Amino acid sequence: MNYEFLKKLIQPADTRIVMLIMDGLGGLPREPGGRTELETARTPNMDALAARSALGFSSPAGPGIAVGSGPGHLAIFGFDPIENEIGRGALEALGVDIDLGPDDIAARGNFCKVDENGILVDRRAGRLATPEAIRLARLLNSIHIDGVQMHVEAIKEHRFALVMRGEGLAADLSDTDPLKEGVAPGQAAALTTSAERTARFVNVYLQKAKKLLKDEEQANMILLRGFDKLPSLPKYGDLFKLRAAAIAVNGMYKGVSRLVGMQVLPVEGVRIEDEFTTLEKYWEQFDFFYLHIKQTDTHGEDGDFDRKVKVIEHIDSQIPRVLALKPDVLLITGDHSSPAILKSHSWHPVPAMLYGKNVREDNIPEFGERACTRGSLGIMPAKDFMPLLLANAGRVAKYGA
Amino acid sequence: MNYEFLKKLIQPADTRIVMLIMDGLGGLPREPGGRTELETARTPNMDALAARSALGFSSPAGPGIAVGSGPGHLAIFGFDPIENEIGRGALEALGVDIDLGPDDIAARGNFCKVDENGILVDRRAGRLATPEAIRLARLLNSIHIDGVQMHVEAIKEHRFALVMRGEGLAADLSDTDPLKEGVAPGQAAALTTSAERTARFVNVYLQKAKKLLKDEEQANMILLRGFDKLPSLPKYGDLFKLRAAAIAVNGMYKGVSRLVGMQVLPVEGVRIEDEFTTLEKYWEQFDFFYLHIKQTDTHGEDGDFDRKVKVIEHIDSQIPRVLALKPDVLLITGDHSSPAILKSHSWHPVPAMLYGKNVREDNIPEFGERACTRGSLGIMPAKDFMPLLLANAGRVAKYGA
Repeated sequence: MNYEFLKKLIQPADTRIVMLIMDGLGGLPREPGGRTELETARTPNMDALAARSALGFSSPAGPGIAVGSGPGHLAIFGFDPIENEIGRGALEALGVDIDLGPDDIAARGNFCKVDENGILVDRRAGRLATPEAIRLARLLNSIHIDGVQMHVEAIKEHRFALVMRGEGLAADLSDTDPLKEGVAPGQAAALTTSAERTARFVNVYLQKAKKLLKDEEQANMILLRGFDKLPSLPKYGDLFKLRAAAIAVNGMYKGVSRLVGMQVLPVEGVRIEDEFTTLEKYWEQFDFFYLHIKQTDTHGEDGDFDRKVKVIEHIDSQIPRVLALKPDVLLITGDHSSPAILKSHSWHPVPAMLYGKNVREDNIPEFGERACTRGSLGIMPAKDFMPLLLANAGRVAKYGA
Repeated sequence: MNYEFLKKLIQPADTRIVMLIMDGLGGLPREPGGRTELETARTPNMDALAARSALGFSSPAGPGIAVGSGPGHLAIFGFDPIENEIGRGALEALGVDIDLGPDDIAARGNFCKVDENGILVDRRAGRLATPEAIRLARLLNSIHIDGVQMHVEAIKEHRFALVMRGEGLAADLSDTDPLKEGVAPGQAAALTTSAERTARFVNVYLQKAKKLLKDEEQANMILLRGFDKLPSLPKYGDLFKLRAAAIAVNGMYKGVSRLVGMQVLPVEGVRIEDEFTTLEKYWEQFDFFYLHIKQTDTHGEDGDFDRKVKVIEHIDSQIPRVLALKPDVLLITGDHSSPAILKSHSWHPVPAMLYGKNVREDNIPEFGERACTRGSLGIMPAKDFMPLLLANAGRVAKYGA
């Protein structure tokens, strides 16, 4: 997307757009000639909607590229996922609801165990219990260093996220995690001169952390890796003139949507139905809703074909609730494929269905990979969907005379 | 299109290419499950041709972008319509057959009415009659300013086009049209230092125009807006080694084709048949013919589904005349979609049909949106069609050994 070009064409309209993302939606058949997870699922509501929609595929980052959730979401949100790289440290921080600014540095951390000589004996500190990690994180947050704020947030077991905030920080730092045991944890080395000051802060922090944790039984040191800033992205409000909301249960998806200026709505409960209830509750207050469902991906990654099918059927049962709200435009797709037989994210284009009153409908009464192959959207780069959604919502003016 | 790359591969051939553009061809059904304008039209000739052609879509400027006629034509002529922006002033000038050079500046003008204090009381001078505007334009063309030629051409009613020609002119000027009444018309302000000299010329011109028109009853001043140069484009003769001709009735289409080096052929009459007669008459003298039919768009923009259908049927009746000439390559498509139900240009990809003896035919015996979805061309950027037409005409050499 050429932001500057598109931004000039954006016009207001009283219309609502829904982007329903089934994480890891795309799949593969279990046996030659068989059906994918989506094709196996009984989805009467999506099939009926397909007949009145345009079908095709979303390609997150081009042929052959299997994306993680970060780039997969940046892409379907309209941004080039290769130009806008999002580091793991930043993603972890997004995942724990730390409100990252564009100049903040994030890193991934491990609580670890060193012996009396400072040699690393357990990179994961015996996968210490999460409550224990939360206690240690609180300890670390008592550290004070002039000129920088350091904040850690426990994630799960030994893992935590670190955020640094201050003037003129740079993320070009080496990891302190040696990724193997039997050696001492490293120091942060500046990889550019502009990162030298940041490296000094990190190393002072490591010293103080070591002192603070030295009498701890299970975890007496920390390791840091993946120092990164967040990509600086235009915000939906400014770029598209959209009041945009995100409905998601898992932290990282909330974080990525916040990154593009969406307001994260509270979901009461963790069931799929609860997310649709949130959609109904806030319907009048926003122009754009991103609704994320994680379980399709979870079961894909677990290799559980049948449970992925069941989740898709479950989501299908909620579709009438969305249609009852009369969205002007509805996109149903995923951020990437996660075929159960691969037990992982994959590079396969993701089935996509675009519904709206000015969509040129394909009259194909089925939502599935083979049906989408016959659809009129073809294989679209994921980042090109947003302009199409906006146009269908009457929000893009004509270009040129 | 990568001009430099393609240009090196161009080879001569004794072949003829026809590009038939039905303006605003693409459409939408009137009701869910219904047929578009093109699908509704009885088009036995195009359907028979479709069976021997490759089908697909042309996408003028990417997903979600509805283009005007200017960018729509630049795209199907082979140029990126976003990189090669064409301003409204330049388009108006093209529309009245002013022969614009690459360094000329064009602007849109209004004849207007000011009161005795110089305050604008009617931006359109009561939509004065065109013959009266022609008379006033002739008056304005008597103005002489050292160092620049200023020429105006009446368009219709109060509207005219202004062209400035001279050394070192720049188009970064503010409008003089305040776009509202009750204030005095503005002066042209230079938006960059390189435009300061041009701004002075414009302001001297405005003073002289005011003096010349001061005793006129209906229109005693002028307003200018949309100062622009034409995009500088390679010419078909140089780029493709084509003797290229344009057949169009409306001025703007003649202008845009001139911009890429086509020779505009005279059409005797304004009926659709007359354009095809011109094609027959000049058949031996050119390698490439662009034939433009406006009425499909006119009825689309008027919201007249049935008349758009009738025009398509009418054009279909002329297809045998084209085929009788035995073109080596024939492309039938539009510059954009104009669905009657939207009464405007739209972003929907435009049905396209490519015929030629080396085209891999799709064996789909129908030309329509749903038929094109099953075609082998897929959704092609409009700017990519020219290389394909040239290759099918034997005019592109092999790349590499």
